[in-house]
Amino acid sequence: MGGVLEASSDSDWRQPMPENMLYLQLESGRVVFELAPDFAPNLIANLRILVADRYFDDLAIIRSQDNYVVQWGDPNSGNEDARSMGAAAEMLGPEFYRDAEGLPFVRIQSNDAYANEVGFVAGFPSGREGEEGRAWLTHCFGMLGVGRANSPRSGNGAELYVVTGHAPRHLDRNVTLLGRVIEGMQLLTTLPRGTGPLGFYESEDEYVAIKSIRFGSELASSERLEIELLRTDTETFGKLIEARRYRVEEWFVDPTDSIGLCNVPLPSRPLD
Amino acid sequence: MGGVLEASSDSDWRQPMPENMLYLQLESGRVVFELAPDFAPNLIANLRILVADRYFDDLAIIRSQDNYVVQWGDPNSGNEDARSMGAAAEMLGPEFYRDAEGLPFVRIQSNDAYANEVGFVAGFPSGREGEEGRAWLTHCFGMLGVGRANSPRSGNGAELYVVTGHAPRHLDRNVTLLGRVIEGMQLLTTLPRGTGPLGFYESEDEYVAIKSIRFGSELASSERLEIELLRTDTETFGKLIEARRYRVEEWFVDPTDSIGLCNVPLPSRPLD
Repeated sequence: MGGVLEASSDSDWRQPMPENMLYLQLESGRVVFELAPDFAPNLIANLRILVADRYFDDLAIIRSQDNYVVQWGDPNSGNEDARSMGAAAEMLGPEFYRDAEGLPFVRIQSNDAYANEVGFVAGFPSGREGEEGRAWLTHCFGMLGVGRANSPRSGNGAELYVVTGHAPRHLDRNVTLLGRVIEGMQLLTTLPRGTGPLGFYESEDEYVAIKSIRFGSELASSERLEIELLRTDTETFGKLIEARRYRVEEWFVDPTDSIGLCNVPLPSRPLD
Repeated sequence: MGGVLEASSDSDWRQPMPENMLYLQLESGRVVFELAPDFAPNLIANLRILVADRYFDDLAIIRSQDNYVVQWGDPNSGNEDARSMGAAAEMLGPEFYRDAEGLPFVRIQSNDAYANEVGFVAGFPSGREGEEGRAWLTHCFGMLGVGRANSPRSGNGAELYVVTGHAPRHLDRNVTLLGRVIEGMQLLTTLPRGTGPLGFYESEDEYVAIKSIRFGSELASSERLEIELLRTDTETFGKLIEARRYRVEEWFVDPTDSIGLCNVPLPSRPLD
């Protein structure tokens, strides 16, 4: 894999757009996400309103379930002390999938328990039902999703979760995914697990404070994460998948000839 | 899933044998494993010698790599301060797979990136190449494996790792797996990540002390984990897989009709 990346050209890399990067600031550091408005334009637009209103500042991470998710939002959601959502919509329709047409879907050849076709769209792991069918983001480690109640319409972006364990792909197409973590994942994965049902923290003392959530476009350039991500619609990414599919390193004595969607690494590098 | 388990009969459950249970005692609590001697008889026999000699006591967890593994052993391994392995073998042949013949393999119907057939053998996730081919334990979350260097013969059981992230199934049949965690997993998954290459801790201060490792058969009965595990060769387990394959709960609006091997839950219950 190292060799493939060393042989890459600058055009194989891209800088994520500041307006599509989300910064979750915790006491322990920051977690940075890239969002995918091509998949969830309405919920991301709503999230922009919430962030502009500083809705999340001083809220908290309220759930950490081992091998599953970390989740944050308003602990008072649903009761009279709930924070106002201001100009944001309180209920939006689901964006569980979209038309595949027009998406730069790069398929990987792999058997998959949950989708007929799997691959990547502009840096995000995705599933697809053929070129003219549906396409959706997939619940791999590090993906960011929108919590909802039983109604598919009940999501609004005020309650978010990140996959911190083995990919819960049965959630695909049942929740709207917004993007993925590109830095700081270990700040979430190492959080103490909640001892309540579903890993919810049982007391306020356990809550993990959120200092702020901001979009990159709101930050001074000196505060932005200086990073480049490997483009997934490149020959280099194809070679990287091949290098991971069949491992030639001396350590491997019986390399497989396959790779699972959520086992494909998505390389980044510091911006020069 | 709850309904399936409530309808189970006592004969659907088994107590793991004390001699196949391993207790890793940390300051923070204990992690309990069930081992699978049908898959790795020689390495488990070697581990019994190491444990009887108290080889692991006061050694340390030396590695925690996010979304991958936690690993422990002798930090001085390979240098002159290395702890003696006593009567244990310093090098054993690989037990990466075995003959499938004679194993009570219960297949689940699922596409899988890494194996033609996947299922369970007496409580352990497994892959198989047909009834007369090879069978092996698979690298799902919580599986316990034997670290080795480049030679397939270089494993001995003195250096062990646990899968703490998305299943690294490309390691299947390339490392000997010994069993899986049945309690205390979160003590491993929440450990601080090492900042060195591959998640190794960079200083002794970061090491996580191992107080002791014991087999259940060495413990007083009052110290043993009182637990029952669902038998995987039962109709109840088959029903549980079906209940997870197609989720009928109201929350699911577009349930899949499939389940990945490492997404199948392995239920336990406290012993009455």
